[in-house]
Amino acid sequence: MVLLESVANDFETRKLLALPQEEIVQKKFADRDMKKTRKIVILLSLCVVVMITQFYVITHSVKIEAANHYSKDETELAELYVITPTFKKPEQIPELVRLSQTLLLIPKLTWLVVEDGYEKNDRVEAVLKRKIGLNYRYLLAPMPEKYRNSSYAKPKGVSNRNKGLEWIRKYAQNGVLYFADDDNTYDVELFHEIRKTKTVSLFPVGLVTELGLSSPIVENCKFIDFYDGWIGGRKFPVDMAGFAVSVEFLLSRPNAKMPYTAGYEEDGFLRSLAPFEAKDAQMLASCCSEILVWHTRTVHTSPAKRNNLTYVYKNSNLPTLQELIV
Amino acid sequence: MVLLESVANDFETRKLLALPQEEIVQKKFADRDMKKTRKIVILLSLCVVVMITQFYVITHSVKIEAANHYSKDETELAELYVITPTFKKPEQIPELVRLSQTLLLIPKLTWLVVEDGYEKNDRVEAVLKRKIGLNYRYLLAPMPEKYRNSSYAKPKGVSNRNKGLEWIRKYAQNGVLYFADDDNTYDVELFHEIRKTKTVSLFPVGLVTELGLSSPIVENCKFIDFYDGWIGGRKFPVDMAGFAVSVEFLLSRPNAKMPYTAGYEEDGFLRSLAPFEAKDAQMLASCCSEILVWHTRTVHTSPAKRNNLTYVYKNSNLPTLQELIV
Repeated sequence: MVLLESVANDFETRKLLALPQEEIVQKKFADRDMKKTRKIVILLSLCVVVMITQFYVITHSVKIEAANHYSKDETELAELYVITPTFKKPEQIPELVRLSQTLLLIPKLTWLVVEDGYEKNDRVEAVLKRKIGLNYRYLLAPMPEKYRNSSYAKPKGVSNRNKGLEWIRKYAQNGVLYFADDDNTYDVELFHEIRKTKTVSLFPVGLVTELGLSSPIVENCKFIDFYDGWIGGRKFPVDMAGFAVSVEFLLSRPNAKMPYTAGYEEDGFLRSLAPFEAKDAQMLASCCSEILVWHTRTVHTSPAKRNNLTYVYKNSNLPTLQELIV
Repeated sequence: MVLLESVANDFETRKLLALPQEEIVQKKFADRDMKKTRKIVILLSLCVVVMITQFYVITHSVKIEAANHYSKDETELAELYVITPTFKKPEQIPELVRLSQTLLLIPKLTWLVVEDGYEKNDRVEAVLKRKIGLNYRYLLAPMPEKYRNSSYAKPKGVSNRNKGLEWIRKYAQNGVLYFADDDNTYDVELFHEIRKTKTVSLFPVGLVTELGLSSPIVENCKFIDFYDGWIGGRKFPVDMAGFAVSVEFLLSRPNAKMPYTAGYEEDGFLRSLAPFEAKDAQMLASCCSEILVWHTRTVHTSPAKRNNLTYVYKNSNLPTLQELIV
């Protein structure tokens, strides 16, 4: 703009300073100046049109991208920490593949995959590595032997989840944490919802117990009671997939963790966040009127048997495939 | 460029045509012309720099996008037609949500969701509509009553899959078709693989029968035999998720369809593609040495019960949630 003004001023100045004896020549040059100015104006207009078009293309494509992420600049989004316990079983790889493909759709998410075992599984690592763009950590947290060898119901996934909490306490300052078991079904909308968590949030989970549902009972978006097929003396009768906690809130409760008590893992963890009451929790998913997560369960299968073809066709693809399965 | 040359020529012409009596004035104006020209050159250079920068931003972002889709121009990719049978059950919605979120990662894919029922389910339609970018068709194909009322094993999903085939015969000219049941697990890589199908392709499926695997047996990328836990006199002992067929090939077999014979659906369909032999099929997934799809099964639950809280809290969120579940 400054340059454009300067060109215009130059033209004006020349007109005012014109001396009588120069008049004819000046007229001739002024005519040429006019022509030249016109050409420059056309040239500049063209430049401006091209620049505006390009600018539109750039901002428009950025807008489309932003719309995919709910029109919010990604840098403004709270980081999500999703803790998923896993252990060696025939369904382990597909479960992780399937869940990873849902999490790939969510920006600003760190996935803590924690294995109940003493050493890492190469297959798990290979699968996670192959998912380009997935931000994950693969950690180990074996169940203490006294629980593993117990004849009572085993507190599955507790060592894994506590390891995830430890990791968050060490590396995170803010954001939101969520326990996502590997066989549940998560609508991507859920992750956008739980990002809103300021302290603790609660929301409905489908396919839990014979009631087919576990949810806070809510009126005017205020908590009244819990709806769950198994209360069992729990203060917080909720499913593992039915709550999220802000990292700041977790850090303000340095002793909060999950107890090794089968059936009471959720309740014990939420109690360990005291002082905390259900009425203080945020009621997410449109005041708990939508189901965005389901407690789907995958049929467990026994480790694969082999038949004689494996030995007949030693040089075929079968030995390679057998290596891939449990 | 033409305009730039014309400005330069104008300047040259003026210099050559200059008359003696105009010399001093001309000199003065020539000086001013020089200054003006310099300003114009700066202005134009700036324009060009901005345009080049913008052009780089545009082409660069297009390149990044293309890289996400395996560096191939999307328009070159074969269209995929994925047929998924569904029916009303407590797990219907989560299964479709979960599968839709995998399919959302695949470009150029048409998802044919075919319901075994006489009328469409509003909940299914709402869920599919909400997935922005999902290219789907929601069709109806009730199982013929004689099979539904039979006391033998029911040929589930056959009417649905045949409806999908009918749709493809009507609307598609080329591409690849694949039968994707709703509870299987599909690695996104699978869809990039099956796009290569020229006639019929075969590949391994994990978690099938007690062998934990169903696959062609392959040596030097050539078919030798089938590995499957249940042969049952089948010519093609494969899983529903273990093959893909090109649309051109299907169209060249006008009578090909799936028989209403429980357990023999895959075999019957592949036989109906005659003339076709397994040795003529493409061995995908790195010559059948990788598992990219698993026959995971979801635990079926009974329709949800209700407890007295539903009646106590009539004005709460519970009635709304109950509407959402089966």
